[in-house]
Amino acid sequence: MTNTQVTLVQIDNYGPWTVTPEPRREADLQTMQSRLYADISQFVGNRGGYVFFSRFDNMIAVTNGLSMADHELLQESVNNRYPVTLSLGVATGTSPVQALADATTLVQEAGSAQDKSRRECLKGRAIETAHQTDDDVQIAHFDVINATGNYTDELNAFDTFIEIEQGYAELMRYMRTAHESLSFFVGGDNIIVSCPDLTEGDYEDAIHHVEDAVDVELQVGVGRGENAHNAGFAAKHALEICRADGTRVEVDW
Amino acid sequence: MTNTQVTLVQIDNYGPWTVTPEPRREADLQTMQSRLYADISQFVGNRGGYVFFSRFDNMIAVTNGLSMADHELLQESVNNRYPVTLSLGVATGTSPVQALADATTLVQEAGSAQDKSRRECLKGRAIETAHQTDDDVQIAHFDVINATGNYTDELNAFDTFIEIEQGYAELMRYMRTAHESLSFFVGGDNIIVSCPDLTEGDYEDAIHHVEDAVDVELQVGVGRGENAHNAGFAAKHALEICRADGTRVEVDW
Amino acid sequence: MTNTQVTLVQIDNYGPWTVTPEPRREADLQTMQSRLYADISQFVGNRGGYVFFSRFDNMIAVTNGLSMADHELLQESVNNRYPVTLSLGVATGTSPVQALADATTLVQEAGSAQDKSRRECLKGRAIETAHQTDDDVQIAHFDVINATGNYTDELNAFDTFIEIEQGYAELMRYMRTAHESLSFFVGGDNIIVSCPDLTEGDYEDAIHHVEDAVDVELQVGVGRGENAHNAGFAAKHALEICRADGTRVEVDW
Amino acid sequence: MTNTQVTLVQIDNYGPWTVTPEPRREADLQTMQSRLYADISQFVGNRGGYVFFSRFDNMIAVTNGLSMADHELLQESVNNRYPVTLSLGVATGTSPVQALADATTLVQEAGSAQDKSRRECLKGRAIETAHQTDDDVQIAHFDVINATGNYTDELNAFDTFIEIEQGYAELMRYMRTAHESLSFFVGGDNIIVSCPDLTEGDYEDAIHHVEDAVDVELQVGVGRGENAHNAGFAAKHALEICRADGTRVEVDW
Repeated sequence: MTNTQVTLVQIDNYGPWTVTPEPRREADLQTMQSRLYADISQFVGNRGGYVFFSRFDNMIAVTNGLSMADHELLQESVNNRYPVTLSLGVATGTSPVQALADATTLVQEAGSAQDKSRRECLKGRAIETAHQTDDDVQIAHFDVINATGNYTDELNAFDTFIEIEQGYAELMRYMRTAHESLSFFVGGDNIIVSCPDLTEGDYEDAIHHVEDAVDVELQVGVGRGENAHNAGFAAKHALEICRADGTRVEVDW
Repeated sequence: MTNTQVTLVQIDNYGPWTVTPEPRREADLQTMQSRLYADISQFVGNRGGYVFFSRFDNMIAVTNGLSMADHELLQESVNNRYPVTLSLGVATGTSPVQALADATTLVQEAGSAQDKSRRECLKGRAIETAHQTDDDVQIAHFDVINATGNYTDELNAFDTFIEIEQGYAELMRYMRTAHESLSFFVGGDNIIVSCPDLTEGDYEDAIHHVEDAVDVELQVGVGRGENAHNAGFAAKHALEICRADGTRVEVDW
Repeated sequence: MTNTQVTLVQIDNYGPWTVTPEPRREADLQTMQSRLYADISQFVGNRGGYVFFSRFDNMIAVTNGLSMADHELLQESVNNRYPVTLSLGVATGTSPVQALADATTLVQEAGSAQDKSRRECLKGRAIETAHQTDDDVQIAHFDVINATGNYTDELNAFDTFIEIEQGYAELMRYMRTAHESLSFFVGGDNIIVSCPDLTEGDYEDAIHHVEDAVDVELQVGVGRGENAHNAGFAAKHALEICRADGTRVEVDW
Repeated sequence: MTNTQVTLVQIDNYGPWTVTPEPRREADLQTMQSRLYADISQFVGNRGGYVFFSRFDNMIAVTNGLSMADHELLQESVNNRYPVTLSLGVATGTSPVQALADATTLVQEAGSAQDKSRRECLKGRAIETAHQTDDDVQIAHFDVINATGNYTDELNAFDTFIEIEQGYAELMRYMRTAHESLSFFVGGDNIIVSCPDLTEGDYEDAIHHVEDAVDVELQVGVGRGENAHNAGFAAKHALEICRADGTRVEVDW
């Protein structure tokens, strides 16, 4: 039974900041956002979590293993080093979508994303150590079959990007509605998904759906673990088996 | 008449590197990619260009104003500081899509993205200073109308992300096929587009198309300049007029 | 009784790398070194430790609270993101100097700093959780009395730097020989020292020695804790008392 | 005839910021400072300059080739990405010490380093392109003879550091008073010096002085160029000759 701990990371009042007193240089905004994401990725990642950049001003993390004190330290450290601050909502559930919905509500109740007076709110609750189990997290790691040979080395870079992007848009929507899962593009042709207790058949279903809908062929490795890193690492190894053996779905359990 | 200089930035042999000798920690890959992008954004950006992360292993840049020597320095500097290297293709044209296609071909002809022996290739040609003009670049900056009020503060963070993402997927495809333009999501609810000589009516057309297709309401500011920063800065100011006045398309010329 | 855990962080074969195949751009070396240090500072720091840049290619850290698994993760993460690798030696003792000497010996025995075949060695032992106590670490935080008024706003920036530097050079030597302590300049006019069980009188002695030798007036706050951050935070608060009250030595115990 | 353009980079009101509202985590301050330095190093460095961290809150740069517009862009970019701002003073002269003194005076006249109302001042004047020459900058690159064999692999890491540091403290003082030069430790056993028109004999004099005073044996390569990078690159190549041939001073002109 999965029990995914999800954190919503929201930059406080970011939109207004980017145009105050007048629009800031785009390259600086891009740099600041990417580095902030990279720092959070290190902080969360070297404690066993995964964080996804999603919209950059709203990032979504799987944080099993991180305490509320860890979250507070992250807020403090960002406040000490960046011109912006973070609000965090933390919630848990068998469905990653529901956990994120709860985490989002906690942050929304504290104020609007563009509320000047809402700064560094920290809401929610982490799973206590005693309640953590080895199958709390299920991670699926998808990629596009032979993306380099079929796309990158053949099409222009934007048309390749469109193909990958259409595959991602379809998968994210389908996995969310049909399978209560959160899907994130993570670069290249890779998509990482935080899932509830799905079966091998569920993944076959998703892969066929995407192929039917937008003609992009995916393969997927799936793993379980006490945290996102362990589950994701098992998923990566499973995906290596797909690549080696030409299979479409490999689960590691 | 636009004359967009486009650079394809491709990490050499990146896919194989990420799984050699076995899969690397995802958080480290995310961190490394984001920081590499951020560094390129600073380098290109403080010379007046824009770079977009797109797939991270393949980034696309509008580099009017940057010489081939600048490109070479970027390669050298990345090689000195990262565990990976870059290949670069540079091409120019009235159509950004065609320019990118030419830039991509230059890199593809030098070898596959997963060719071990292709390292740090630098191909193509930059616009000579004497040939640069004040309307070489046209940049459009789109965002979603009242995204915070309609989505961020109302839906869960993933459903908001899906809405933004569907709007982006539709716009990128339409602008590419109907208008020879390259569209990039840049965080929040913002999409920046490198365009040929489009008219105000072309932007109205695109906005209506996206609204009809996926029910996401966009507004857009458009600017021209000798480089991406100048054109984009004008576009940002034009977009501020949309936000203030409730208009859908503002062009700064 | 202090029990300081010290880690020597040595970049493997760094000198030769900086000139292979020919000298690398100095700005890139500086950038890479500083960012590597910053990353290690975040990793160690958000686990309660302190790391000092010292020579950059050889950094010294107070790592009470970090396990050998933490050290291993640091090595792995750096290897995934930088063009260089780290060797680490970990040792413990009532004297920080002796602990560092032991940590150094462990690394030296594994091979020369310029040995091509010595990569990512990890040697030594961390204090077990059960043996950690609240006064394992003693940290002193020195600064120069009224450095801004006496130097920064009065002398040219290099002559100010010389004054600070002479004060540091004298203090580092004296604290090492007379008091078995490791002193590190950390920017501005601040020096942080990892000490064994010293008394208030020992600090008065050091301050007078530096004033007599090089005519630089120091003040110091001192704290104790289970790790460097806690001890150092107490020291910072004690130093604030010096600044407010005009005292020369404040200890927090 | 040298004509060194020197920039003083001073973080505005930094001391008070580090303890407001209470002392900030040391690891965060170290990280922020180091990354700020690294970013400035990239900005200045990929325009041909050198910047030295010196006290981190006061950095010193050799900026021949950078215009006042470049300096302004640096200020803007830092303001967009960091919680602190920079003031800059720029001055030029045949003596680097005098140029820095003039640059410092410009910043001091705008207000104290701890003046709340002085923010982002930009003062001074850059050398016009037409007046730049190929020998405007002279850079000397020193290192310690066989530092790895004599120190790093033999002594404990702190005693090695003390040796390097004493050599540096002596050289910086001597080069400043006897030779109007600015010396900076740049990591490892390397010291880079911005010099006026010195002769080979002047460098021999400095090396002998340091050896007599603190028994540290130095060697040095010296180069000239239109900017710091070109001069410094020639100096690095000259130093390689010292290393290969066992000579103490090599000049590249």
